[in-house]
Amino acid sequence: MFSPRTIGHARTPYAKTSDIPKGLGAQHNAEGVLEILPELEPGLTDIEGFSHLIVLWVFDRSEGFDLLGTPPSDNRPHGVFATRSPRRPNPIALTIVELLRRDGPRLHVRGVDMLDGTPLLDIKPYLSNVPPEKLRRGWLAEAEARKKE
Amino acid sequence: MFSPRTIGHARTPYAKTSDIPKGLGAQHNAEGVLEILPELEPGLTDIEGFSHLIVLWVFDRSEGFDLLGTPPSDNRPHGVFATRSPRRPNPIALTIVELLRRDGPRLHVRGVDMLDGTPLLDIKPYLSNVPPEKLRRGWLAEAEARKKE
Repeated sequence: MFSPRTIGHARTPYAKTSDIPKGLGAQHNAEGVLEILPELEPGLTDIEGFSHLIVLWVFDRSEGFDLLGTPPSDNRPHGVFATRSPRRPNPIALTIVELLRRDGPRLHVRGVDMLDGTPLLDIKPYLSNVPPEKLRRGWLAEAEARKKE
Repeated sequence: MFSPRTIGHARTPYAKTSDIPKGLGAQHNAEGVLEILPELEPGLTDIEGFSHLIVLWVFDRSEGFDLLGTPPSDNRPHGVFATRSPRRPNPIALTIVELLRRDGPRLHVRGVDMLDGTPLLDIKPYLSNVPPEKLRRGWLAEAEARKKE
């Protein structure tokens, strides 16, 4: 196995977990900055052409994992691999952000949902969508439907 | 930083890198199985409701990284964070697969593009698409346009 290394840090408006919008209908429109280590800046070459990025980061203030848990968006327990819970066997998180602009090693983005200072693991270009007519969203769609009743 | 742990392994038709379709227009329709460790099976509870999954896995047969590289889909170099190159600071890969069925701790999926035996790090539900009218795909769209000329 590899040893994870930090490629940079997220600057976000969220100082504590309770600041982050959660649950059904939560909006993630907050702007933030992905500060990449200066020595890795050449790795950002041509990233400006992409409107959206996949950001992998570490749930660095979470410890241990639960195989079953009840997410903020439902009142029923689900398997950890069917949720975005931070308490996972590998505490790796994924966020899709919109790239607003690049300023050297700093990527200004919209859609951050991580705590300020969070260590980043990777950035990848977002390349394609799943065909909408094929997308099913399991318990989350059910919880949304129950909420509307 | 955390110590990555294997949550299972991918069974795919690809014994060597050269077997995997690459480059512009490459199709990833191959079926495979994500074999999750038996002790983690409860973490898959309710995953059947999702049509698509995000799989995080390790480029375990890649070593070191390059900040700039020329991907199989283009003849020009790009920054590593603007590509899906295996030679990244953290050798973490991401694949979106379609879940066909679950058989206990085994997820039968379509769309695998990793080598047989690849260690898996995480599985997350695929929840939403980027609005298609907002999606820009940088150098990849340019390479596709040049190919059509």
